[in-house]
Amino acid sequence: MTPNAGRPVPPALKDLAALRDSVSAGRTAHAVGMVQEGGQLERLDIPRRAVGPRDIDIDIDFCGLCHSDVHSARGEWGTKKLPLVTGHEIVGRVVALGAEVEGFEIGERVGVGCLVDSCGECESCEQGMEQYCLNGAIGTYAATNPKTGEYTQGGYSTSIVVDQDFVLHVPENLDPAAAAPILCAGITTFSPLNHLFVDEDDQVGVVGLGGLGHMAVKLAKAMGAVVTVFTTSESKIEAARELGADRVVLSRDEEAMKDARGSLDVIIDTVAAPHDLNAYLRTLKVDGALVQVGLPSEDMPPIKPGALISRRLTYMGSNIGGIAETQEVLDFCAEHGIVSDVEVVTVDQVNEAWERMVAGDVKYRFVLDVNSLREAAASSETVGA
Amino acid sequence: MTPNAGRPVPPALKDLAALRDSVSAGRTAHAVGMVQEGGQLERLDIPRRAVGPRDIDIDIDFCGLCHSDVHSARGEWGTKKLPLVTGHEIVGRVVALGAEVEGFEIGERVGVGCLVDSCGECESCEQGMEQYCLNGAIGTYAATNPKTGEYTQGGYSTSIVVDQDFVLHVPENLDPAAAAPILCAGITTFSPLNHLFVDEDDQVGVVGLGGLGHMAVKLAKAMGAVVTVFTTSESKIEAARELGADRVVLSRDEEAMKDARGSLDVIIDTVAAPHDLNAYLRTLKVDGALVQVGLPSEDMPPIKPGALISRRLTYMGSNIGGIAETQEVLDFCAEHGIVSDVEVVTVDQVNEAWERMVAGDVKYRFVLDVNSLREAAASSETVGA
Repeated sequence: MTPNAGRPVPPALKDLAALRDSVSAGRTAHAVGMVQEGGQLERLDIPRRAVGPRDIDIDIDFCGLCHSDVHSARGEWGTKKLPLVTGHEIVGRVVALGAEVEGFEIGERVGVGCLVDSCGECESCEQGMEQYCLNGAIGTYAATNPKTGEYTQGGYSTSIVVDQDFVLHVPENLDPAAAAPILCAGITTFSPLNHLFVDEDDQVGVVGLGGLGHMAVKLAKAMGAVVTVFTTSESKIEAARELGADRVVLSRDEEAMKDARGSLDVIIDTVAAPHDLNAYLRTLKVDGALVQVGLPSEDMPPIKPGALISRRLTYMGSNIGGIAETQEVLDFCAEHGIVSDVEVVTVDQVNEAWERMVAGDVKYRFVLDVNSLREAAASSETVGA
Repeated sequence: MTPNAGRPVPPALKDLAALRDSVSAGRTAHAVGMVQEGGQLERLDIPRRAVGPRDIDIDIDFCGLCHSDVHSARGEWGTKKLPLVTGHEIVGRVVALGAEVEGFEIGERVGVGCLVDSCGECESCEQGMEQYCLNGAIGTYAATNPKTGEYTQGGYSTSIVVDQDFVLHVPENLDPAAAAPILCAGITTFSPLNHLFVDEDDQVGVVGLGGLGHMAVKLAKAMGAVVTVFTTSESKIEAARELGADRVVLSRDEEAMKDARGSLDVIIDTVAAPHDLNAYLRTLKVDGALVQVGLPSEDMPPIKPGALISRRLTYMGSNIGGIAETQEVLDFCAEHGIVSDVEVVTVDQVNEAWERMVAGDVKYRFVLDVNSLREAAASSETVGA
């Protein structure tokens, strides 16, 4: 047996040059994005590629506003090339299909989530875990796709062209605006619950009650779990109960936290700011797991290893989900009648919505009505003419 | 469905008073232990309880010296009541059996590990995970056993009386001195490998090459894994290879650490001093797990949540193993001819051995020859007479 001397060698991406050559300009999309560093979101037009043989051309109806959009556009997760159009909770309709596309129809309601491509050849991709692609999955925005040479631009825009393998079927019984956040907030919380086999009567904790947290509550409840919400804010107790939480614990109430000790199987931690996990770890049963899905930009306070050792606890991370799993959560939501609680905003309100999102002033997700962008673009063209 | 409002209610321990009343004094054991705070190990005699109906009386032949003994006796894991006789890697022979004992014979070689009792009634105990007993497992030393009222005293002594459920069969084909460390160092590393289903061709990393680490290498190799040892010391490279390591990585060699990225399924981290785990996490594959079994007395540097999230990594702890699993590792070792590499010391050498153990100057485990204690006690009695 020869030990693997290092990281798996990336499989050669086939016919890269040929692929790039085949990419030609397609439609122009109207968009709203970050044009200048430190600026506000502004109207701009972006080119989309021509529809290749495996591509689906989508007219976008709605796009969710995710905290990741803000982090990325403001360079809080590393500097990104501008202009940048964010948005990875995209719902729209198919308007054109490449010659080799199978299983999609013109006019069908579809979605695009956080990924628009991956190598398709590595161990992760072969196992349907495109989000962990060893060659680097291609994000829906702010990524350079080696296959096409494109710098990806997201869903705060009127259209997008995406490889069929990264397009989801959005069930028609779901409200399209309220379904959009399933493509990020939904799959991000569904994936760890699914991976850890959360089932009937399992005790699930949810830390933080924002876009991700409120989906975690709904999904875990639909799986049959008994759900505890941890919140720092008394004002959220009633809201958590309305979402279906069986128990709400104020995390700064030491007595309540003590009462919760050793009671949970799984905790989904959606908070993307540094916070002390040790108190939450104490609420886990033996063999319990705390899954972090919110990504703080700074270090977290250290975890006490003794807590992990004395009860075989797991602290793990989880990143969105694979494409098949994203289809699974859409179908699960359709079956259980789950959508996100959303506030639909027009393009004029998008900067204000970002500020309110950063301040936590939203129940629970903003969704951009892309028709408002289409109308704004049309009227400015008229004005300009 | 009513949520579990808190920690499971401890089941009432049955007939505690009756049990305590039945405990009467038995033999006196000669021992060596910590008598005065901040002192050296000294000779002392300790009472053992009379053999109850479910008890086994054991004459001890060998007892391993574990770093936990030092931490406990020196109050580094919290102040302990003195005098304290440490030692939880005990191998001896059965000399008396209670009336209700089944499956053991007089003269049989047996072992006692880190635990001598647990409630036997909680969810953990019912699943054979006595080490995670919800009512508190009873350590072999420095614990007060609510069933007997005893303050437990460990294996640096000539005899011990233990409930049959906590006595292990030590296969006769194993050298008894070299088998002793299987009862702590062995089970502590076997349990996570077993729990995570390590199997043929899995890539296993071991951090630290001491008492625990060297057993981890031997056990993982016997399971068919490909083993990488991480060490801070160039002097240990050859030693690691001799133990069977397929690859040795100097953890301060940044290039070597880079080469090791994304290559491992499981890492067993045996280092009991604070150290940065982020570099080791980078050597894990997607879905890999780092298991901490060494317990530092201070906080570890913080883990980057991004590393966990981006590849769904697990950071977990694991504490020794259950009784059935301890029997399993003993049988596994007998089948594969595995014992610890030991240096046998006499009672006169035990203080020096502790100093050398703290300094890391042992390959890989000291074991006390309890006959030397028996002889020392006999000669001092003669002198005293």
